[in-house]
Amino acid sequence: MQCPAMQTQRVGRRSAKAAAQQGVACMHIGGRVFAIRASGRRKDARAASAASRATSVKVHATATIEKPAGPSVTSSNGGAGTRVMIIGGDGYCGWATALHLSARGYEVCIVDNLCRRQFDLTLGLDTLTPIATIHDRVRKWAEVSGKYISLQIGDICDWEFLSQAFTSFQPDHVVHFGEQRSAPYSMIDRQKAVFTQTNNVVGTLNVLFAIKELKPDCHLVKLGTMGEYGTPNIDIEEGYLTVTHNGRTDTLPYPKQGNSFYHLSKIHDSTNMLFTCKAWKVAATDLNQGVVYGVRTEETMADPLLINRYDYDGIFGTALNRFVVQAAVGHPLTVYGKGGQTRGFLDIRDTVRCIQIAIDNPAARGEMRVYNQFTEQFSVNQLAEIVSREGRKLGLEVVVQNVPNPRVEAEEHYYNAKHTKLVELGLQPHLLADSMIDSLLEFAVQYRDRVRMELIKPAVDWRKTGVKVNTMGAAVAK
Amino acid sequence: MQCPAMQTQRVGRRSAKAAAQQGVACMHIGGRVFAIRASGRRKDARAASAASRATSVKVHATATIEKPAGPSVTSSNGGAGTRVMIIGGDGYCGWATALHLSARGYEVCIVDNLCRRQFDLTLGLDTLTPIATIHDRVRKWAEVSGKYISLQIGDICDWEFLSQAFTSFQPDHVVHFGEQRSAPYSMIDRQKAVFTQTNNVVGTLNVLFAIKELKPDCHLVKLGTMGEYGTPNIDIEEGYLTVTHNGRTDTLPYPKQGNSFYHLSKIHDSTNMLFTCKAWKVAATDLNQGVVYGVRTEETMADPLLINRYDYDGIFGTALNRFVVQAAVGHPLTVYGKGGQTRGFLDIRDTVRCIQIAIDNPAARGEMRVYNQFTEQFSVNQLAEIVSREGRKLGLEVVVQNVPNPRVEAEEHYYNAKHTKLVELGLQPHLLADSMIDSLLEFAVQYRDRVRMELIKPAVDWRKTGVKVNTMGAAVAK
Repeated sequence: MQCPAMQTQRVGRRSAKAAAQQGVACMHIGGRVFAIRASGRRKDARAASAASRATSVKVHATATIEKPAGPSVTSSNGGAGTRVMIIGGDGYCGWATALHLSARGYEVCIVDNLCRRQFDLTLGLDTLTPIATIHDRVRKWAEVSGKYISLQIGDICDWEFLSQAFTSFQPDHVVHFGEQRSAPYSMIDRQKAVFTQTNNVVGTLNVLFAIKELKPDCHLVKLGTMGEYGTPNIDIEEGYLTVTHNGRTDTLPYPKQGNSFYHLSKIHDSTNMLFTCKAWKVAATDLNQGVVYGVRTEETMADPLLINRYDYDGIFGTALNRFVVQAAVGHPLTVYGKGGQTRGFLDIRDTVRCIQIAIDNPAARGEMRVYNQFTEQFSVNQLAEIVSREGRKLGLEVVVQNVPNPRVEAEEHYYNAKHTKLVELGLQPHLLADSMIDSLLEFAVQYRDRVRMELIKPAVDWRKTGVKVNTMGAAVAK
Repeated sequence: MQCPAMQTQRVGRRSAKAAAQQGVACMHIGGRVFAIRASGRRKDARAASAASRATSVKVHATATIEKPAGPSVTSSNGGAGTRVMIIGGDGYCGWATALHLSARGYEVCIVDNLCRRQFDLTLGLDTLTPIATIHDRVRKWAEVSGKYISLQIGDICDWEFLSQAFTSFQPDHVVHFGEQRSAPYSMIDRQKAVFTQTNNVVGTLNVLFAIKELKPDCHLVKLGTMGEYGTPNIDIEEGYLTVTHNGRTDTLPYPKQGNSFYHLSKIHDSTNMLFTCKAWKVAATDLNQGVVYGVRTEETMADPLLINRYDYDGIFGTALNRFVVQAAVGHPLTVYGKGGQTRGFLDIRDTVRCIQIAIDNPAARGEMRVYNQFTEQFSVNQLAEIVSREGRKLGLEVVVQNVPNPRVEAEEHYYNAKHTKLVELGLQPHLLADSMIDSLLEFAVQYRDRVRMELIKPAVDWRKTGVKVNTMGAAVAK
């Protein structure tokens, strides 16, 4: 049975009423209403199969209807007509952002070469959640929301492809998530270190050239990382530091110290971007994002085929997501080293809001604007404590285990990073304490039959990064 | 006729006496004596042809004998047994350094893919001086000095090649000049921007991996550039800046701001190197070199086939070398914009000494040592004044012409860069005023019949860098 789909906000509301009369469950997103239904199209076989493996999705989605998650989102159709290209729109943050913006009336085009899925295939990893193909995702989104997301599959390092994508879509904003984004992946071996830096730096260079030559007024929203700053013994500012030295004063790019070839690649990007803002008057926002946690946004929970990925493995799983899954399956929380490593964190629901805020308040031509995109900072030990405490409330036995740190990093250090600019522009943070209650752990418990224990352990040692190609076959089979 | 060649220092002295008895001119280098002779080997046809085009070389070399250039060089055989791989050893700085070290007893291996010569071929450029092939160069050096320089032709971005070169040579020090080193070249078009960053960053990454895996105690001497710092409104320190901020203090990497894709690539290198020094205990010296001028070192003047390249064109010609040639041929000195741009400069005879100093006083394992490698700082206007004044002494009519600045850069700015560390280690600078008298201009006059006027003008506009492939054919034909 085809469920009524929302064509516009007003039509949507009318259809919702009709759906309600037919007994179809509905949920509210961005002031609009979506019907919740299971996929019934035969040609969606692969995605349907994924959905059937995770029957809990439907239950969970229904639960969302009864208990709407998070604060209110922009209720107006504020994005109408604004054309946003999302590079890496099939990834963890990219997919959630694409739906968030599409739901709010932005014209969204996803550009992705699907390399993230290829990494999982080659390394034998898998997301906790059963994700549909990108083609099924955008088809389902159109059904569910009445919104069309255009899709261009290709590699932004391939200029012929990127220039064509730019010329045909004519973006007002480019949101660039399209990079190899795992520190451990970049430390597997020389080939992957070189791939990470080449892929990320050349991709961003191509985007900068595309803006300059094909759409000079296009605003670039580039995802950086808080990891670019390292752990200096002074406060971390947002992108720039005003220095007085020998009686003279200047405001300079904040000194950067990356701790993996991945983090370094993002520093290179920022350095390149700053130059093009000066030389070519590119308008850019560099979002130095913290560690993202959570998987649920309103839109990605609207249908099983829209569910976002959730990585918990030792290569792509970020600290908190990994801890939550470890707690859910009774695996000790693997704290690397002393656990005093402190970082900035944010809920994925804040990631999508931050991107929207950056778009709605774009940088000026020639401006290289830097925001630190996180909401709270925690040490790894603090995270482990929170997950332990919340896990015990759910009746889970949670043990913390300090394992040898596979990374080379300070394990006890000063950390105080500023993050006020996005709040000043309207960000209302989801705080971790609420999110934990708000079912981050429950979610992981729900999917725990999909957890593969052998993927949880740290998989890459910074000191052992070598020139011999490491296929990781032995590592994951251990 | 074969000239007596020096087999060792002692044998060399005996041979020199014999040569003197035969009436062969000799010169002293590093406490040893070399015979000066024209190439007579039939198979040196190409180099001999080059030499015949510049008959003045022999005269000049002879002049050098009568008037030894510069201060004394290390007279001991201090480098004996120390194995130095010079990547980019066929280039301007690399070739002079290779001979300087070889003359002093270091075991030298040149690694080069000859891309610098390929750039000239593709862009229709040529060095002022008629340089021999690298194979003829090292053969001639063996004849003249009795020293064997090994040669490995290949691309360090090709791991298979680099690892083989490392394994076979087992360097104690790697001096890495092997990068695309022209700012204008990197701004020609998107392809060349991407090539510059990929070539430089991947090459250096490969060198770092080679050290870690194949020769962990090998000291890396990497050529950076003063251009990494840009033109901050505070004093430029040597690599690091101690910052007090909100009551806390840390010493951090000096903030970098490059003004071309080339300069940016060197920032990326430095950022990567710092990480590997921390994570892998690599020993590295980053030499942020200023603008090099001059062409004569004692060794490169020992035979016409050893002569160094001298670039005066709008793409590879550095400011002072270009001004000197312009003065020699009666072309106005092309000052870009207001001419207040201030930079650090050094004589190529100091470049080679600085490299030796860095090798003789290596960084410790885990240390990322940064030296600013220049001896004097001048504004472009000051350079033009000096060249004008010295030119008039030689009877040349020198006119200064301010042309539109093809670059995007501050044309009036504060500039005070520190450069004491190499001096503290023993560098005795050649100062520009002396070098001018010491025949920099005379040298250019000598070769002025080889100058191609169409190559002198600025060839690349920073603002016009585009995605369309620019073959430069039209530019050089103007």
